[in-house]
Amino acid sequence: MDKQLNPPQRILMGPGPSDVYPGVLRSMSTPLLGHLDPAFLTIMNDTMDLLRHVYQTENKLTIAMPGTGSAGMETVFVNLLEPGDKAVIGINGLFGTRMADIAERCGAEVIKVEADWGTIIPPEKIEAALNEHSNVKLVAVVHAETSTGVLQPLEELSEIIHNYGALFVCDMVTSIGGTPTEIDKHKVDAAYSGTQKCLSAPPGLAPVTFSEKAGEVINKRKTKVQSWYLDLTMIQDYWSGDRAYHHTAPISMVYSLYEALRSIKDEGLENVYSRHEQYGRALHSGLEAMGLKLLVKKEHRLNQLTSVIVPEGIDEAETRKLLLEQYGIEIGGGLGSLKGKIWRIGLMGYNAKMTNVNLVLSALEDVLRQQGYEVTGGAALKAASEAAAK
Amino acid sequence: MDKQLNPPQRILMGPGPSDVYPGVLRSMSTPLLGHLDPAFLTIMNDTMDLLRHVYQTENKLTIAMPGTGSAGMETVFVNLLEPGDKAVIGINGLFGTRMADIAERCGAEVIKVEADWGTIIPPEKIEAALNEHSNVKLVAVVHAETSTGVLQPLEELSEIIHNYGALFVCDMVTSIGGTPTEIDKHKVDAAYSGTQKCLSAPPGLAPVTFSEKAGEVINKRKTKVQSWYLDLTMIQDYWSGDRAYHHTAPISMVYSLYEALRSIKDEGLENVYSRHEQYGRALHSGLEAMGLKLLVKKEHRLNQLTSVIVPEGIDEAETRKLLLEQYGIEIGGGLGSLKGKIWRIGLMGYNAKMTNVNLVLSALEDVLRQQGYEVTGGAALKAASEAAAK
Repeated sequence: MDKQLNPPQRILMGPGPSDVYPGVLRSMSTPLLGHLDPAFLTIMNDTMDLLRHVYQTENKLTIAMPGTGSAGMETVFVNLLEPGDKAVIGINGLFGTRMADIAERCGAEVIKVEADWGTIIPPEKIEAALNEHSNVKLVAVVHAETSTGVLQPLEELSEIIHNYGALFVCDMVTSIGGTPTEIDKHKVDAAYSGTQKCLSAPPGLAPVTFSEKAGEVINKRKTKVQSWYLDLTMIQDYWSGDRAYHHTAPISMVYSLYEALRSIKDEGLENVYSRHEQYGRALHSGLEAMGLKLLVKKEHRLNQLTSVIVPEGIDEAETRKLLLEQYGIEIGGGLGSLKGKIWRIGLMGYNAKMTNVNLVLSALEDVLRQQGYEVTGGAALKAASEAAAK
Repeated sequence: MDKQLNPPQRILMGPGPSDVYPGVLRSMSTPLLGHLDPAFLTIMNDTMDLLRHVYQTENKLTIAMPGTGSAGMETVFVNLLEPGDKAVIGINGLFGTRMADIAERCGAEVIKVEADWGTIIPPEKIEAALNEHSNVKLVAVVHAETSTGVLQPLEELSEIIHNYGALFVCDMVTSIGGTPTEIDKHKVDAAYSGTQKCLSAPPGLAPVTFSEKAGEVINKRKTKVQSWYLDLTMIQDYWSGDRAYHHTAPISMVYSLYEALRSIKDEGLENVYSRHEQYGRALHSGLEAMGLKLLVKKEHRLNQLTSVIVPEGIDEAETRKLLLEQYGIEIGGGLGSLKGKIWRIGLMGYNAKMTNVNLVLSALEDVLRQQGYEVTGGAALKAASEAAAK
């Protein structure tokens, strides 16, 4: 007989998934409701309300798509773009690259605005692209680049984009629940995110939100959305008063999202953000006290995801292997052009706490020492503790 | 503070989701692994092996797509079809209609072969279509039509389709784990299914399987797959030895699928099928003894999903409402042209048991009587019990 599921215990401090709130884990064992049951429809409504709260928006069209974060990305582009449309895409990491790939598959003309991985997209480069190309339908940037740990400021960008009459699209997979998203304040027209980062729910849903203006663009399309599964012209009727059958919602995942959002609202958004700020700052100080260099300069660093440059002579993958095997701690490696060059350490959602800062600093110090890297014992923990107390 | 999740207790006897195995429910609360953790990769491999066992295939490309059943449908069509390709689609219910819609969104020329809802697609009509149209790339039918309760025989169809050199595609959303799927025996080139029917896992994954021939068609495409999220040319490297990062697998859903498949293998496929047969037969006899008529003629009836014609003078939706409110039992209504005309009663997976047959017959008898429908007391239960013992 096949074995019962008994996976090893881990502390998930990579780029996601992160560890899930205990209450969220328990909620997954709740027996199912039918997906058209009035009681489930109430849960869907409550989940939409909570999503609006956490996204910081009044957008009516704020729902959880039935797939992981990348399905959210695809949802935004397949619904907003039609063949021949122009899209300006900011690329400063893997997820910008992915947005461009998806937009091209929609038949759009993609105008790439590139910046070095680990830096932000300069707003003036977006403005230059909008100046050069007329009738751009949308501009997309990644708010929190999971592949580099960069936080893209939105305010100036938003003003530029709206001056040119384009839609403002944001990848908020790693920012939601960890960094203020402020959809309405920044006039973001469409955003998508994942559940497995700072929301601390399991992967499997992609919360998306669309402004009224973006909704009108979708409802006035000349062509059918190329993906049936992600077609919002139908799905909006499933998540609305009509409850028109489309797909079967992933019931247990909706349970988990509801409970995760409820935990966040209960703690208070401001408290959640400042907790991420506090422990992110502690981790940064600790790593620097260990003599390590961070990829991203201070003012553009994410609190929830930190990219550390692998010191010379240290094996990137071997270090992660030792952390996993000796400590049960998972951290991430680099992607694309940063493969083998950085580690990515997450302090996301439920995991953004001092015990995790201490654990990862101590463990990293040990496995680096095993590889001949010299570290002043205890300096990292002291620096982290001081930074956290600031 | 928002309320804790405490949904009412239901018995899910509609067209899916069905009630989940208790062991599967518990597995959902297992703390997460990272999706690239070696321990999770082992679970993915074991899940693929179990899926091959339940699908009855040796197909290497047998994986669980990160979406619900309809994402499986879209996966098959977006990967196999390119613009201008010809696809013959059998339409005898809602899901045939959906296949045609998706194939058209892929830019394919769709040749519809229609039959009355509640009947099978006659193989000779498929042959006539293949005779009339040259170079048809694929022929798709629904093995178990969830909207009508019809079981489509595959053997003769398969021979015809392969004689014409086309790929044979099957929707097995409701058949997998309830009816022999026999992918290899019937030379099915591509099939997709859902987890929330006879597998008795929650909705959220779509197991798909592709023959070597179908895999070659995918790998020789001239154009990019229009969906990035469902692009098997990339996803096959994520579920293979390469483990190339694509999306983040829905970890908890994979746990649930593993445990559900393990339960099925442990019971034994033959035992699982005969259990569905035994209790399906009991339900059919009981309903007929109540004077009700079934939509589908005996030889094409599914065991796991039964369509009952609403008798004159009875309110279809009111009946379901009474069952839900007074008994906590969910059954389904009709879709499309059958809306308001039929009920759909599921006995799927874990739910295919005599207690559920007795419950639904007793409850239905009562709520019909409340609406003035005359039933001979106890006749249904007696007939069901006799049929189950046959």
